[in-house]
Amino acid sequence: MFEATNKIRVRYAETDQMDVVYHGNYAAYFEASRAEAIRDLGLTYKDMEAMGTYMPIIELHCKYLRPAHYDDLLSIKTILKEMPTDHRIQFHHEVYNEAGKLLTIGHVVLYFIDAATKQKTTMPAFLLEKLAPFFETARD
Amino acid sequence: MFEATNKIRVRYAETDQMDVVYHGNYAAYFEASRAEAIRDLGLTYKDMEAMGTYMPIIELHCKYLRPAHYDDLLSIKTILKEMPTDHRIQFHHEVYNEAGKLLTIGHVVLYFIDAATKQKTTMPAFLLEKLAPFFETARD
Amino acid sequence: MFEATNKIRVRYAETDQMDVVYHGNYAAYFEASRAEAIRDLGLTYKDMEAMGTYMPIIELHCKYLRPAHYDDLLSIKTILKEMPTDHRIQFHHEVYNEAGKLLTIGHVVLYFIDAATKQKTTMPAFLLEKLAPFFETARD
Amino acid sequence: MFEATNKIRVRYAETDQMDVVYHGNYAAYFEASRAEAIRDLGLTYKDMEAMGTYMPIIELHCKYLRPAHYDDLLSIKTILKEMPTDHRIQFHHEVYNEAGKLLTIGHVVLYFIDAATKQKTTMPAFLLEKLAPFFETARD
Repeated sequence: MFEATNKIRVRYAETDQMDVVYHGNYAAYFEASRAEAIRDLGLTYKDMEAMGTYMPIIELHCKYLRPAHYDDLLSIKTILKEMPTDHRIQFHHEVYNEAGKLLTIGHVVLYFIDAATKQKTTMPAFLLEKLAPFFETARD
Repeated sequence: MFEATNKIRVRYAETDQMDVVYHGNYAAYFEASRAEAIRDLGLTYKDMEAMGTYMPIIELHCKYLRPAHYDDLLSIKTILKEMPTDHRIQFHHEVYNEAGKLLTIGHVVLYFIDAATKQKTTMPAFLLEKLAPFFETARD
Repeated sequence: MFEATNKIRVRYAETDQMDVVYHGNYAAYFEASRAEAIRDLGLTYKDMEAMGTYMPIIELHCKYLRPAHYDDLLSIKTILKEMPTDHRIQFHHEVYNEAGKLLTIGHVVLYFIDAATKQKTTMPAFLLEKLAPFFETARD
Repeated sequence: MFEATNKIRVRYAETDQMDVVYHGNYAAYFEASRAEAIRDLGLTYKDMEAMGTYMPIIELHCKYLRPAHYDDLLSIKTILKEMPTDHRIQFHHEVYNEAGKLLTIGHVVLYFIDAATKQKTTMPAFLLEKLAPFFETARD
């Protein structure tokens, strides 16, 4: 299992008139947190695109347990439970507030797409190499 | 079954550098289309809030089949398959482009919340009354 | 002078916890309304990009006189007061609510950029041709 | 003069199909950076609202000199050049990329509004106290 945590401060722009974070904004919170998780591995999603692999979102699932509020400093976990074996990769996300309360859970499915052919491909070798150590001793 | 269709023109603001609508923006497309579906019934979600019922989103699920692009005129269906019997209501959404291609499917779960008590409640009578005719003759 | 009016219904996503449209969202309202103004002329900004002219925003100015609220049906005027003579074009925008109250005024400056050379260019002939009739008899 | 710098990493959600940060998103970058500037003073805008002072945006002005791109780590300066003497406060913003290039400049005008009366008011004493040391020795 690979896991990383990213902090995001809620902006006024992201609230709605129900005084909470608008539910659609979690997609961007998850995305920013995945980017930081990949950065923790020593590469960037930006590099991946530059090297010819796009990762469009194919599915998004969110459950909103408790609201997040303006100025909350959220901790957003990005969890990869299984190593991808084909063109799909699934990340789980958990959003916590400063009191440690779990606010939102979600997961996204992304495809690996070859930028040149626009076809599905498998995980690039350089990403697999970075992730492998997290999955060596035991399967989660 | 109750069904309504809303048209949304994709804004430049809603695209990302993959030249498609950013996946998180469908939440707002669905929301705007639900609002129009309720307006088709002769009331508004704004009125519902004013009359004391909030409907926060509890779950959001999206599957992205094909991308939507800048300036596409999307047709977004809002479908209520079953009459709510408790505090939950589930809407299904389908997004089509002008060529009639299905781009995205999703569904959301909302709760009926009493604005005064902040507790779960059931569907307000005035909404039930508007929806009843669509569910009278046959169950879908 | 060339003028066009576009209607935009305020989405919940666009409100903030001050119960008004978040000020940054007017940029997208202006953009969507410029796109409709160009469509009124018989072409689209999408076509313009496809034909090799980009129009990035160089300046944005907004004055917020009165707030817009959720579900308001806004009328957004796009006004071209002067025909561009170089690489700059300036559009004025006015946002009105259903009661006819002026809520927001703004203007944007855009450049004409040649997609191939990435250099400033002048207004494409096909756009000039469409706009000319509005500026023939009198200068505003 | 009071000045503070905030770092913001550009999200994919904030780009558009011109491969740059959508111009409307700088409003939220400025807002988030003002919030951090106020936090640097030892209070928060959230507290200010809780203590009865709202600060709606009355004007927004942006000049886009160079584009910001996905994954750029932006440095956003918030500058208060003059102490407010009435209900208005004006902040200047400058956005730099990691290479130190100035990308965007802007300024916003906000009003101090009393939450109870909804009327214009002057800067709360607790904010004035925090800012005073920055304006004591010399006017900028």
